[in-house]
Amino acid sequence: MLIVQKFGGSSVANTQRVMNVAQRVAQSYKDGNEVIVVLSAQGDTTDELISKAKEITVNPPKRELDMLLTTGEQQSVALMAMALSELNIPAISLNGYQVNLRTTSDYTNARIRNIKTSRIKTELARRNVVIITGFQGVNRYEDLTTLGRGGSDTTAVAIAAAIHANKCEIYTDVEGVYTADPRVVPNATKLDEINYNEMLELASLGAKVLHNRSVELAKKYNVDLVVRSSLTTAEGTVVKEVTMEKMLISGVAGDDNVARISLLGIEDKPGKAFQIFSTLGKNKINVDIIIQSIATDGRRNISFSIDKDYLNEAKEIVDSNAKRWGATGVEYDENLAKVSVVGAGMVANAGVASKVFEAMYDEDINIHMISTSEIKISVLIDNGDMKRAMRAIHDKFDLGQ
Amino acid sequence: MLIVQKFGGSSVANTQRVMNVAQRVAQSYKDGNEVIVVLSAQGDTTDELISKAKEITVNPPKRELDMLLTTGEQQSVALMAMALSELNIPAISLNGYQVNLRTTSDYTNARIRNIKTSRIKTELARRNVVIITGFQGVNRYEDLTTLGRGGSDTTAVAIAAAIHANKCEIYTDVEGVYTADPRVVPNATKLDEINYNEMLELASLGAKVLHNRSVELAKKYNVDLVVRSSLTTAEGTVVKEVTMEKMLISGVAGDDNVARISLLGIEDKPGKAFQIFSTLGKNKINVDIIIQSIATDGRRNISFSIDKDYLNEAKEIVDSNAKRWGATGVEYDENLAKVSVVGAGMVANAGVASKVFEAMYDEDINIHMISTSEIKISVLIDNGDMKRAMRAIHDKFDLGQ
Repeated sequence: MLIVQKFGGSSVANTQRVMNVAQRVAQSYKDGNEVIVVLSAQGDTTDELISKAKEITVNPPKRELDMLLTTGEQQSVALMAMALSELNIPAISLNGYQVNLRTTSDYTNARIRNIKTSRIKTELARRNVVIITGFQGVNRYEDLTTLGRGGSDTTAVAIAAAIHANKCEIYTDVEGVYTADPRVVPNATKLDEINYNEMLELASLGAKVLHNRSVELAKKYNVDLVVRSSLTTAEGTVVKEVTMEKMLISGVAGDDNVARISLLGIEDKPGKAFQIFSTLGKNKINVDIIIQSIATDGRRNISFSIDKDYLNEAKEIVDSNAKRWGATGVEYDENLAKVSVVGAGMVANAGVASKVFEAMYDEDINIHMISTSEIKISVLIDNGDMKRAMRAIHDKFDLGQ
Repeated sequence: MLIVQKFGGSSVANTQRVMNVAQRVAQSYKDGNEVIVVLSAQGDTTDELISKAKEITVNPPKRELDMLLTTGEQQSVALMAMALSELNIPAISLNGYQVNLRTTSDYTNARIRNIKTSRIKTELARRNVVIITGFQGVNRYEDLTTLGRGGSDTTAVAIAAAIHANKCEIYTDVEGVYTADPRVVPNATKLDEINYNEMLELASLGAKVLHNRSVELAKKYNVDLVVRSSLTTAEGTVVKEVTMEKMLISGVAGDDNVARISLLGIEDKPGKAFQIFSTLGKNKINVDIIIQSIATDGRRNISFSIDKDYLNEAKEIVDSNAKRWGATGVEYDENLAKVSVVGAGMVANAGVASKVFEAMYDEDINIHMISTSEIKISVLIDNGDMKRAMRAIHDKFDLGQ
C-alpha cells in the first residue's frame, strides 16, 4: 500500500518524539508499504521564529516571513531522515521546491496549484521513505511560500491526491473524530467513519482535529483520510465519500471564538445587504451567520457573526463605512460562541432543529442567532454557556457511550 | 559601485547585531552603491543544529545534515531583509537554489561549480539590496549542499566574481590583516595591502581572518577583497593582485592544531613514499610538511604533519597499513605547532631563513621540522612554544608598531 502519514509539531517536538515517530514509520515500511511522511515544524519552532521576526519589526514583509518560517519544517524532515537512518530504514527528506509543490504567491496564506510527483516516485522506487516538509511550497518566482493554518494537513492530502496514495493518515493527539470534544463532553464517542461533508462541517465549526482546507481537498480528489493517534495504535476515524450508515447526528462542535457585529437602522431597500457584504468580502472578512430583522418604519437591523480574530480588522471597515451604508448605529459583541450539530441524516428528519432548541430551553440558554443547512444546525449563544450547551445537545441525541 | 558585503555569524548573532549590520548596509545603499549581502547563520546556530542531529544519531547522513544546516543561513537572510525593511531600504533575501549556486555533490564539503546571476541582477535592477545565504548551494539533483569551513567567505567571493563586483568586503571582528595575531603579539601592525599569494599562505597557516578557499577564488578571478571590522569604520586591509611595495615579510602566523606521524624503519627503495602518501590522499588526509631521514642500514624514517582534527582518521589508516608499508614502528605526536613567516620579498633575500632560526635559537626553542617555499618559511615546534616563537620572529623582523 502507498500511504501518506502526517505528523504535527507536537509529535516531533523533541528528540524522543522524533524517534517515536520514526519507529512507527519504520513499522509501516517493514510491513511492506511505500511510505511518504509529511511533517510540521518541531513544537513551538514556528512561534519562536515569529517572535524573532517581531523583535526586528512589528510588520515583517510576508515574503520574508515565509522565508524564515519554512526553515522549521526543513529541520523536522532532516532530523526525521536521520532518525530513520539510525533505525536502518532508507529515507530521504525533501522540501517544498524539491517536490515542486507549486503555490500561488499569497505569502503566509498560499494555495497549492500543483505538485510534480516525479521526484517522489523516483525516491519511492529506490525504496526510500520519502519525508516531505508540510506547510510550504514555492511560487512561480521560485520564492518560498507557506500555506497558512492547517497547512501541513493540506500538504499531506495534496500529496496523497497527486500520487494516488491508498490512504492519508493524519496523526494527532486524539484517537479520531469524536461526537464532541471529549474535554468538554466526557462521554463523547469516537466515530469509526464520517463522510467528507459532515467532517467539513465539523472541521469548520471548531472540531480541531482536521483543518477544513484539507478535508475539502480530500473530498475533491476522493482521498481516504484517517485521523488517528500518534500515541496509541487505535484504529482512528476514516473520513471518506460513502459511509456504511448515515447517522442522524455525527457530532456536536463548539467554537467560542465568535464575535457579532450589528448594523442598526439600515434603510430597507434593495442592494443594501449586497453593498455591506461585498465591502467586507473585498477586505477578506469572512462572514458566517447573517440575520436581518423585520423592517419597521422602513428600517431594519443587520447582524452578522465573524471569527473573533478578525474583529479589529472588521471594526475598522465597519466604522469607516457605517455612515455610507446609512446605519444609525453599530454594536459589537465579542463574547459569543457557536454550537453546531452536524449529521448527514438530518436532511430527512425535520425534528432535529426542534430537539436542539428544546435542549437549549431545558438549560435556560438564550439563543442569539440561528443558522441551518442540509447537514448542520448552528446556534449563537453567550460563550459562557457553550460547554453546557454542547453537553445538553450531546445527551439529547444520545451520542454518549 | 557594486559591492558584496559578507558578515559572519557573530556579526548577526542577535537582534541588536542584525540591526547594526542593517544600518551599515543601509548606509552603503544610501551612498549610491548596489549592495549584495552574504550572511552566515546566527551565532551558534550551526553548532546547535549539529548537536540536535547528534542526539538522534552519532553518524547523521551527510545529505540530511546539509538539509538541516542550510536552515541557519536562511533564517539570517530573512531576518536581515526584515531589518532593512524596518529601515525603509528595499531588500530581498535569496537562498542557494534561488541564485542557482550550483555545487558538486560532496555533502558537507561541496565545491562551487557556477552561479547564475540573472536573479541577482533582476533584484539589483529593482533597486533591492540582495541578501544571499552563505555556505550553501544546490547540486544537480536539486539537493542542498554546504561548502564546509569558511564557506560563507567563499560564497561571497564567488558571487563577487560571477557578477563582476567592484569589491568584496569581508566583515569580521578584527580591523584587517595583521603582521601577526594581535592577541599573541600585542604590537602587531595592520597591513594596508597584501597580495593574494601572501594572504593565501597566511590564511592556510592559521591567520583566521580569511579562509584560504576564498582567497584562492579571489586570486583566480582577480576579485578585490577587503577585510575590515564590522564594529568600526576603519579602512581594513585590501587583498589584491599587485600591491604598492613588496614587503620582505608581511606576517607571522601560528597554528597550534598540528599533529605529527612518524613511520619508522621504512625500506629505502623507490615508490615507498608514493605508496604511503597516495593511500593517505585517497582517504582525504591532507599532509602538510614531510621529512625523510637519511637512510641507514637500508631503512629510513618518514615523518609528516597533519591537521590535528584529522588525527583519528589518519591513525586508523596508518595503523591498518603500517605493516603493508613495511614500517617497523609508528609514532604519534599531537602537541605540536607550526609557526610561519610569509612575505613575497623573501624570494630575493637569502637571509630570511637564517633570521628565523636565529630567533628560535635566541629563545631556546627546539625545531622539529622545517618547510620552505618561495614566499614562506615554516617551523614545527612544541605547541607550548608557539606564542613565544611568534613574538620572537615578529621582533626579529621589526614588524611591530
